[in-house]
Amino acid sequence: MSNTFGSLFRITTFGESHGAGIGVVIDGCPAGVAVDAARIQAALDRRRPGQSDLTTPRKEADTVHIQSGLFEGLTTGTPISLFIPNADQRSDDYSHIAHAYRASHADYTYDVKYGRRDYRGGGRSSARETAARVAAGAVAMQLLAHFGVEIVAYVSAVGEVEVPLDYQELDLSLIDSNPVRCPHPETAARMEARIREAQAARDTVGGVITGVARRVPAGLGEPVFDKLPAVLGHALLSINAVKGFEFGSGFAGTKLPGSVHNDEFYTDETGAVRTRTNHSGGSQGGISNGQDIYFRVAFKPVATLLQPQQTINDQGEAVTLVGRGRHDACVLPRAVPIVEAMTQLVLADLLLRARANKL
Amino acid sequence: MSNTFGSLFRITTFGESHGAGIGVVIDGCPAGVAVDAARIQAALDRRRPGQSDLTTPRKEADTVHIQSGLFEGLTTGTPISLFIPNADQRSDDYSHIAHAYRASHADYTYDVKYGRRDYRGGGRSSARETAARVAAGAVAMQLLAHFGVEIVAYVSAVGEVEVPLDYQELDLSLIDSNPVRCPHPETAARMEARIREAQAARDTVGGVITGVARRVPAGLGEPVFDKLPAVLGHALLSINAVKGFEFGSGFAGTKLPGSVHNDEFYTDETGAVRTRTNHSGGSQGGISNGQDIYFRVAFKPVATLLQPQQTINDQGEAVTLVGRGRHDACVLPRAVPIVEAMTQLVLADLLLRARANKL
Amino acid sequence: MSNTFGSLFRITTFGESHGAGIGVVIDGCPAGVAVDAARIQAALDRRRPGQSDLTTPRKEADTVHIQSGLFEGLTTGTPISLFIPNADQRSDDYSHIAHAYRASHADYTYDVKYGRRDYRGGGRSSARETAARVAAGAVAMQLLAHFGVEIVAYVSAVGEVEVPLDYQELDLSLIDSNPVRCPHPETAARMEARIREAQAARDTVGGVITGVARRVPAGLGEPVFDKLPAVLGHALLSINAVKGFEFGSGFAGTKLPGSVHNDEFYTDETGAVRTRTNHSGGSQGGISNGQDIYFRVAFKPVATLLQPQQTINDQGEAVTLVGRGRHDACVLPRAVPIVEAMTQLVLADLLLRARANKL
Amino acid sequence: MSNTFGSLFRITTFGESHGAGIGVVIDGCPAGVAVDAARIQAALDRRRPGQSDLTTPRKEADTVHIQSGLFEGLTTGTPISLFIPNADQRSDDYSHIAHAYRASHADYTYDVKYGRRDYRGGGRSSARETAARVAAGAVAMQLLAHFGVEIVAYVSAVGEVEVPLDYQELDLSLIDSNPVRCPHPETAARMEARIREAQAARDTVGGVITGVARRVPAGLGEPVFDKLPAVLGHALLSINAVKGFEFGSGFAGTKLPGSVHNDEFYTDETGAVRTRTNHSGGSQGGISNGQDIYFRVAFKPVATLLQPQQTINDQGEAVTLVGRGRHDACVLPRAVPIVEAMTQLVLADLLLRARANKL
Repeated sequence: MSNTFGSLFRITTFGESHGAGIGVVIDGCPAGVAVDAARIQAALDRRRPGQSDLTTPRKEADTVHIQSGLFEGLTTGTPISLFIPNADQRSDDYSHIAHAYRASHADYTYDVKYGRRDYRGGGRSSARETAARVAAGAVAMQLLAHFGVEIVAYVSAVGEVEVPLDYQELDLSLIDSNPVRCPHPETAARMEARIREAQAARDTVGGVITGVARRVPAGLGEPVFDKLPAVLGHALLSINAVKGFEFGSGFAGTKLPGSVHNDEFYTDETGAVRTRTNHSGGSQGGISNGQDIYFRVAFKPVATLLQPQQTINDQGEAVTLVGRGRHDACVLPRAVPIVEAMTQLVLADLLLRARANKL
Repeated sequence: MSNTFGSLFRITTFGESHGAGIGVVIDGCPAGVAVDAARIQAALDRRRPGQSDLTTPRKEADTVHIQSGLFEGLTTGTPISLFIPNADQRSDDYSHIAHAYRASHADYTYDVKYGRRDYRGGGRSSARETAARVAAGAVAMQLLAHFGVEIVAYVSAVGEVEVPLDYQELDLSLIDSNPVRCPHPETAARMEARIREAQAARDTVGGVITGVARRVPAGLGEPVFDKLPAVLGHALLSINAVKGFEFGSGFAGTKLPGSVHNDEFYTDETGAVRTRTNHSGGSQGGISNGQDIYFRVAFKPVATLLQPQQTINDQGEAVTLVGRGRHDACVLPRAVPIVEAMTQLVLADLLLRARANKL
Repeated sequence: MSNTFGSLFRITTFGESHGAGIGVVIDGCPAGVAVDAARIQAALDRRRPGQSDLTTPRKEADTVHIQSGLFEGLTTGTPISLFIPNADQRSDDYSHIAHAYRASHADYTYDVKYGRRDYRGGGRSSARETAARVAAGAVAMQLLAHFGVEIVAYVSAVGEVEVPLDYQELDLSLIDSNPVRCPHPETAARMEARIREAQAARDTVGGVITGVARRVPAGLGEPVFDKLPAVLGHALLSINAVKGFEFGSGFAGTKLPGSVHNDEFYTDETGAVRTRTNHSGGSQGGISNGQDIYFRVAFKPVATLLQPQQTINDQGEAVTLVGRGRHDACVLPRAVPIVEAMTQLVLADLLLRARANKL
Repeated sequence: MSNTFGSLFRITTFGESHGAGIGVVIDGCPAGVAVDAARIQAALDRRRPGQSDLTTPRKEADTVHIQSGLFEGLTTGTPISLFIPNADQRSDDYSHIAHAYRASHADYTYDVKYGRRDYRGGGRSSARETAARVAAGAVAMQLLAHFGVEIVAYVSAVGEVEVPLDYQELDLSLIDSNPVRCPHPETAARMEARIREAQAARDTVGGVITGVARRVPAGLGEPVFDKLPAVLGHALLSINAVKGFEFGSGFAGTKLPGSVHNDEFYTDETGAVRTRTNHSGGSQGGISNGQDIYFRVAFKPVATLLQPQQTINDQGEAVTLVGRGRHDACVLPRAVPIVEAMTQLVLADLLLRARANKL
């Protein structure tokens, strides 16, 4: 098990879907950061179930409790512990999967790896664990705010429905103007229809989230193994259901000739070093160059279906399972704050690490 | 700087393009592994420049020296140090970039981060550093061989030229039958032509490498942050020029409905647990499930062009640079052993880590 | 801040003396360990204040809550979170030290390091943090029990009052037969008198704790930097008030000639490898050799005195402070379970790490 | 195996006594430090065998080669690799221990742990490995010099012969005025006699080294687990033959009442915060307070004796062994630079880590 992420700004998460709660310990946040609990709660509210009829109707309050690390509203340099009690537990919902392996879930692999598992609601493998990440990310965000860094994410594709524009061409203030969290209203409407279609078919749908980090100081990223995109990719690929990560020009960039792909440097009117294009996605040699960092994250369709599926039980016998209870047909809207949180955690960590580079 | 990768099978690389050499220390390889130096050398030979007229004509012998950790042909559990002297140094080739920032290179970001850089051949940011990774990967490979794990990679796209088949439909024994390292001969010929076209235009071209790991035992991967795809993505995104990583169904899988994407479990005639499809790419909940692990890695086109480009110097003044010397128009063929090496290192590490899971 | 200890069996503690509580997350405990909450509580009860009139009269219930990681009484391989609410907080007791630096306390150094501190009861620097270590140690103990390892500690000196015998000559079952936790009854009585003398003088007294680990398998310890005594020393020197650590023959052994100090090997009647003496303290080359591991830990006298002391405030002005409230005149009896816990944590970690040594 | 030490200033050592050589990779040294190879060589010269007839007559040149990380005399922020070839290898000297276990050596424990060992000269367990630490320490020293930190160590006891004064009462410039490295000339003469007596008796003798770090800035040390004395103790207890570590008042301090032991704060004429006594040894709450850091390290007598000793072989049969070749009767004089080096490495690391404490 590896439930710790980060080097100098480091989080350790714990908790299962149907245990006492979900929590996180943040170690390494510098002293002197003003942390507003309301901003942590606001981040959690964007992730919680039951926000709209597009998402699972489970109503989880997801109230955060700050248990340590703050004194008179400021961080003290000691560990910050956040705890989110599990309010809405219904363990009896899960007896049908105590001995059966849901398709494309972690039931089988946890059993092989550990010899046992807490099967209630997926236990530790449940995406409920990401609530802890979102809470921790909201602390990282308040640290990053001191340095002017701003991070935002949005849904850029639901199934085959894609936003037709690049992030620079969008008004990102519109992200939360619709339940899909897509800043392109016409596409948002089509995405919403696509999700309702999946709901109606008792099926699910995946998609893509685009993330952008602006005003990131040049110099973040630790070659050769902890290059900025490598650590960011690690963070995002550790989110449940993520199948791919690309930054800057990504897979599409492999089709451009070098003469087009290269980002020409110039000095702007303020004397700042800039690039005329940004295929690099704000990172060169694994180190931020001061331009926007942007990336795309692929989410597979949700594995829990409200229709029968063939599978086996832990005796190897064929069985039929039907998903019960309250599940999202599409996780993308609720995954937006998770993508933001992991990006916040990575940049906070790299920012602290960069302090050791020069004499 | 973070020049160490891995947790229990851990490597630390060092060295610059034009210093004394490139090296790696492997810590944590279990005792009792038979290590054949010839297999390390063979891996390096697949990465070295000058293999064919498709790659840079630099002739680097890249001879590996084993400096510690072996006794009578077997590992002893102590650190294995490998050193590859730099044979073909021509420092005078690089005076033109001592004070100028090459487009889409790491010159600028290293200067910002560290206040100085060894500009000769890119110094530490040169892809020459990956020779150390390939050497270490060849040790990991010899450890993995004891467990039957087999890892292979090939070029699946050069620019817009793509292999039209999935890896299961290809004869992977053909990978080294052509200088492009593509196991589909007709496509290989088109790729070769595409690279020569770039050479003729004094331009460069990117592409995609597909990797496959077979016979990986179920149970590897450490949730929640060191899930198998997350660690693998970290490793591959740390390779020079990589812009994207996807595993299993990847970005394409976001367009499938859940009812199609889910991998149904069944028990095969031998009693083994299998899945009928493998959109999961051999990992569920971040843990290997015994099916093939497969993934794709995007490489941007080489940034060094043998044609003039506009940029700036370290005074912020506009200058024109032309790449000098001997450079690949396409790194994909030589990157195949690097992708294999990073995959070997990740799986060796996760294999050792998995030993601590159960009582 | 570094609130994480251990490599594969890893703990992260959090919490302050007068915040919501003290907690710990244990990551890496293998699945399948039966964990009895009563044994955790029993360990905490040996550490808590108010056990006898020899220790502080504060009555802290120190009730442990298990928040994650167990299912049906067994560990699942996921993080185990333990929380101990702070029951008896009286923040108003501490206003006098909000701006003054107590002698030989951490007030000044925390202020220098972090620019601020939670001064209530010492905040994070309070020995109350060790409650979390004791709780985690009790989980490690239950893992070690599967391997037959047994760890015990006792008070071997209070001030100048010392046990006149070696640990092999004592009946260690008597440790808890008296409030001092010294297994030599006559010395225990003298120690008790010495502590009461300090109480009467409104002064404090230090001492030494001896620890012993028996039936430790040979092969634990990771040269060259994580040798068993080095990691154990790190763990014990991280306890509040500890000023020294020696194992085996320790400082006294420096006065023996090599011909006397060397531990001759022999094969006993069962065919087991033994040593005739054990000056090595069970570790050779940093690796356990199957003999008893034993060591001594020095604790300075408690810094909080119930008598006036000269010091300065955070403006650099001279002030007089008198300790208020309820404080131990001697922490040794309550430190016994802390020494045991740190030893348990180290051996659990080294035991898991040793699994990766051989093929 | 754990051959890496340090968090931000991190070293990885490799090499065996009779392999190609001994080396170290330093990762994390900030860019811009002027590193003088002559100072590294000078440190090695203080550690090497054959310095005087008090030490082993082996003549090892121990010439350091800098293989990476420097450019034009300054560090670049990339890994610094140092290699010391093994010049004087005589493998045939060691056939007698290929299958026998020397008393109080690591032969037996390496065999148990790894199933095999390089028995030539002790292989990896040889104190020759510390040459790499000394070389790395000399780089750390050059970093620390920028911050004014000064570290020095000396032999304070050889067997029962002890320096009768505290470090403050000695003229530490005399340390290298005699081959014993004791700054108290009369005691040095008695120590020298004591070592010659051991040589004559074909026996060995241990002792104590005292270390002092001056002008260490306040604020170094990372509670709660990486307190300054805990990390320092870890480092020093990882040196071959070390059996104990105490700092400040140490074991003797356990006998003082708290009213005497406490270090009263005052403001000196320059406005600096000072303490009137320094029983704390420069660390309070695990964080440096700006006063001198001082400590003592116990070394057991050398285990290799030039007289017959009973032991067993790897079949469990009784055998007699006599040490062959060239061995020190007392390692203390040559261990002085090793103690200094480990202290330098620890303080360099804590200094870099402290940069992340405040906003």
